[in-house]
Amino acid sequence: MNESKKISYLGPEGTFTEEALIKYLAKAIPEKDNKNERFDQIQKIAFSTITDVIKSVDRGEVNQGIVPIENSIEGSVNLTQDVLTFESEVKIISEITIPIKHHLIGKSRTRIKNIKQIISHPHATAQCRIYLGQYFPDAEIIAANSTAEAVKKLKETENDCAAIGTRIAARIYGLDILVSDIEDNKENKTRFILVGNYVPPSTGNDKTSIVCFLKKDKPGSLFNILKEFAERDINLTRLESRPAKKDLGDYVFMIDMEGHVHDRLIYEALESLRNKVYLVKILGSYPVWSE
Amino acid sequence: MNESKKISYLGPEGTFTEEALIKYLAKAIPEKDNKNERFDQIQKIAFSTITDVIKSVDRGEVNQGIVPIENSIEGSVNLTQDVLTFESEVKIISEITIPIKHHLIGKSRTRIKNIKQIISHPHATAQCRIYLGQYFPDAEIIAANSTAEAVKKLKETENDCAAIGTRIAARIYGLDILVSDIEDNKENKTRFILVGNYVPPSTGNDKTSIVCFLKKDKPGSLFNILKEFAERDINLTRLESRPAKKDLGDYVFMIDMEGHVHDRLIYEALESLRNKVYLVKILGSYPVWSE
Repeated sequence: MNESKKISYLGPEGTFTEEALIKYLAKAIPEKDNKNERFDQIQKIAFSTITDVIKSVDRGEVNQGIVPIENSIEGSVNLTQDVLTFESEVKIISEITIPIKHHLIGKSRTRIKNIKQIISHPHATAQCRIYLGQYFPDAEIIAANSTAEAVKKLKETENDCAAIGTRIAARIYGLDILVSDIEDNKENKTRFILVGNYVPPSTGNDKTSIVCFLKKDKPGSLFNILKEFAERDINLTRLESRPAKKDLGDYVFMIDMEGHVHDRLIYEALESLRNKVYLVKILGSYPVWSE
Repeated sequence: MNESKKISYLGPEGTFTEEALIKYLAKAIPEKDNKNERFDQIQKIAFSTITDVIKSVDRGEVNQGIVPIENSIEGSVNLTQDVLTFESEVKIISEITIPIKHHLIGKSRTRIKNIKQIISHPHATAQCRIYLGQYFPDAEIIAANSTAEAVKKLKETENDCAAIGTRIAARIYGLDILVSDIEDNKENKTRFILVGNYVPPSTGNDKTSIVCFLKKDKPGSLFNILKEFAERDINLTRLESRPAKKDLGDYVFMIDMEGHVHDRLIYEALESLRNKVYLVKILGSYPVWSE
């Protein structure tokens, strides 16, 4: 692939979404493609909302887009799922899971004991609450609209304050990581999805995501849906029911399963399902990648 | 009930959680109890995290506590569910749903056309993005750790800025609502739960919430769980699978259903379920209240 490629992401520069994209591009793309200058030809474009990232793919402005879909500190999971379900025709082309590491970022001259103010997104400070309570019980916690904005604000201030942010944000703004890995929960991970306009071929390590629109919340209807998968030994990895929007059914049922939509058993299950529900929308069949 | 009662809530003062509590107390408690001075004897106590609110009930410091559980701008749904599932023995004693209304708050002397800065929690500004883009395209958006903190910051500034917050926060800080209902999605609602140490009696309009801990993500296991409800015509209102923490099973399956745990069919379904899964935890049977 030699043409240049545009990928949109949830910005601003220095977010976890950009970090996930960089890691994915560096490691998931086979090395021979890297040598082929493929990596240099990718143009990253930041958008300020999840909706804008996804719709930039729908509009054809970019080839692909990346957004968080689970356990994110940057945006709502529900929003990503709702846009994919109700407002877009893009397909998920890869799932990318990375650990969420928070770092205390400061200026090189800043001494940790002098720090009186700490800037970050409310979710990031919440995820470092135990650490902050132990080492900075008296610090003022200042909110920012993203961890990236927090690091940018730190760069602009004269005071001895610190920010909580990503490694990449520290690099972008030329600041130091004073303490790394300050998150309370070391198992914290975020799933991101890369979306595009096609269904990638089966790799043998794929997941398929679908949404079923149901007309009435009848006791047996969920059961009848799951029966199609149970009978075919298809392993479900996630299930979630959500209230529907507008007129498209009374509620929706989101299902992730192991396997590819081109696998015979999955294809048959989905065909059978279409007779039981108002609508089945396939969000994608895609390989799973994690750091 | 004449003794004084303490209820903890997700603070600070002026949050949507406090608003939900006030509305619930004013309307859901029968009028005769209100006349009985019951309302005046309730002491509201703010905590700064969802975990602290719930654990204050576990520790017996308060009689009840209220936290958001779905579609909140103040905290993570997942956090509330995880604390109830893994870290607490409290029971849900009521579900309270209120519409989320955002208001543009300012000082009485502030003229809307002079507003150059708008303060709020990042989720609240995100929920008013279309409105802000239309009327304040050039305003600087300043983050706060909660909508309540945003209104407090506004009170302290000399500038002609505004905040996005609740009606109750405007009242607490003696500020004016310049424009009401500026949220983009007028259907936006948040579910809160009131937790306590008991299972309330059946009212005829109840929901029951349970968590099933499963040992292995076998294809048929979810199906076998749902079968118990389908066979008994028990209506499920929410389903969600989540990865488990620690050693309690490989994943958990959260189910809300219509009815009370003392109903014979629900009791039987749960008894039968206990033979199929590692553990069933009942989070509560409770009446449903909405504004």
